Amino acid sequence: MNTFKDLQNLIETEISKILPETTPPGLYEPIRYTLNLGGKRVRPILCLAACNLFQDDISKAIPAALALEVFHNFTLLHDDVMDNSPVRRGQATVHKKWNVNTAILSGDTMFVKSCDLMLLTPESKLKDALKIFNKTALEVCEGQQYDMDFEDQETVELTEYLQMIKLKTSVLVAASLKIGAIIGGADKKQADDLYNFGIALGMAFQLQDDFLDTFGSKAEFGKRIGGDIVENKKTFLLLTALQKADSETKSEIKEMISTEKLQDEEKIARMTAIFENLEIRESTVGEISKYHNEALLILKTLEIDENKKQLLYDFSNLLQTRNN
Amino acid sequence: MNTFKDLQNLIETEISKILPETTPPGLYEPIRYTLNLGGKRVRPILCLAACNLFQDDISKAIPAALALEVFHNFTLLHDDVMDNSPVRRGQATVHKKWNVNTAILSGDTMFVKSCDLMLLTPESKLKDALKIFNKTALEVCEGQQYDMDFEDQETVELTEYLQMIKLKTSVLVAASLKIGAIIGGADKKQADDLYNFGIALGMAFQLQDDFLDTFGSKAEFGKRIGGDIVENKKTFLLLTALQKADSETKSEIKEMISTEKLQDEEKIARMTAIFENLEIRESTVGEISKYHNEALLILKTLEIDENKKQLLYDFSNLLQTRNN
Repeated sequence: MNTFKDLQNLIETEISKILPETTPPGLYEPIRYTLNLGGKRVRPILCLAACNLFQDDISKAIPAALALEVFHNFTLLHDDVMDNSPVRRGQATVHKKWNVNTAILSGDTMFVKSCDLMLLTPESKLKDALKIFNKTALEVCEGQQYDMDFEDQETVELTEYLQMIKLKTSVLVAASLKIGAIIGGADKKQADDLYNFGIALGMAFQLQDDFLDTFGSKAEFGKRIGGDIVENKKTFLLLTALQKADSETKSEIKEMISTEKLQDEEKIARMTAIFENLEIRESTVGEISKYHNEALLILKTLEIDENKKQLLYDFSNLLQTRNN
Repeated sequence: MNTFKDLQNLIETEISKILPETTPPGLYEPIRYTLNLGGKRVRPILCLAACNLFQDDISKAIPAALALEVFHNFTLLHDDVMDNSPVRRGQATVHKKWNVNTAILSGDTMFVKSCDLMLLTPESKLKDALKIFNKTALEVCEGQQYDMDFEDQETVELTEYLQMIKLKTSVLVAASLKIGAIIGGADKKQADDLYNFGIALGMAFQLQDDFLDTFGSKAEFGKRIGGDIVENKKTFLLLTALQKADSETKSEIKEMISTEKLQDEEKIARMTAIFENLEIRESTVGEISKYHNEALLILKTLEIDENKKQLLYDFSNLLQTRNN
């Protein structure tokens, strides 16, 4: 059985091998830069951990695990262009360090590379793995489209928001587990259970992101607190606040969003105060716990030796208590 | 045996079925728009024609044929963003009609869709087909990178240019034939021969594009004559001219490229005159013929009933004599 740290180290070693010096450098340098920015490697670790539930030798799942990480980084690269984000993981984004064209084309190339890594999956599992991979990739694109659509929509329902983050984040976490499980030899029911575990985990993970952006501590979060508030992002916090607020508070929120009268710091302070009054902190923690518990329950009922599940239990708890 | 027109009609019918009304519309409308812009459907036709060399029933190659067309259109969509091209096939490009973000994300989605179509290839041929597909996709990205790099380079060798158009255009034409052949049941030698036929055909096709941009007739070409000259594009014509010119003419060309003194029409007229003096028209026609003859020779030596090859002969001739 591997520990979390074992898998993380394995992923880092393997990622560094994906792209040797290749030409043209204008295409491959930004890819190496992106893959070396680090990150939590959540998806490949979950893929390997899921494989490990069914098999001691996880080597057959390594290419798929890498594919999922490269695919994830490709989506970040293109999302950063679309959102015009200057910073990713404390470093300049590719379209800022190079330019938009480089970000588009290097992103495309990473997508191809991820497909090519998937192809190293053992042939008996290949078609099943690719079906999930492609379906998920399509859903992630749809999730990003909804996310962009929501920016221009005046109102977004909370259920629409949850569906969007499911598509944008959870399905890839879930697919990582399912693909790893299939490669490890899981039966259909086990693979589906792990997928559902991943959906719940992914939802908790994304809502935690929303939470930390407002209620996190700057030193630990690693980026500015309140960024979502400044950008009027329709997060779980804001949408829940709009749902809970009386008409007077609702008007106050809407005015803050539609005008640009307030300085950033004042806006963050006032919106956070409204959130606290409406007990949005508690609502969000409650929602995260709901998904987290759902994930744990699925994991518990999975008919596999409990000892083998330890890594996934630990990982779930780590994700829920994370502060960055 | 199918005729060229049969295959074209088949492709048009099948393409219209790929994308039913799907949500979110912001993602799928631009894709339908792109796929409905038409085009020659060179790649899917060649894929089906290659399959047809080995099998009467070409239905098993239809998903791959569509995948190749969707992939090709994805690359056009992203290339148009990178080149900031306002018009494609006489219509507004996606990033002009919608916006850059839409073009990026709809392009990504088309790429996923093409992978998903490939997955409908019969399982016994799937891995081989995907290997070629992924390798080709990577090469097409590399070709686009070289193309962008060349814009900023002061000098480009003719051999570098030919390598770039091979990556950007020929490999996908070649892969279309090879994938169709494999699905049809070709052996390795036959599949490789058809690949090489496609490389030569693709080179002739792309050089014909360069030729028509300067020496075509506007009415037939469908876009402005001399666009490449105005944009100082390092085409086969310009690079050959720089190679053939004496030092005085070379200086004249370089001055025309580096300054913006001339009005477009005057620049086109003067550069075309230089090309005519240097017999670039003849050089280009000669180069196209060279590749065309190479293609025909490969086709001729392919050990298949000559009658079955007729469509590919016709298609090669059609491509060489095309004026748009």
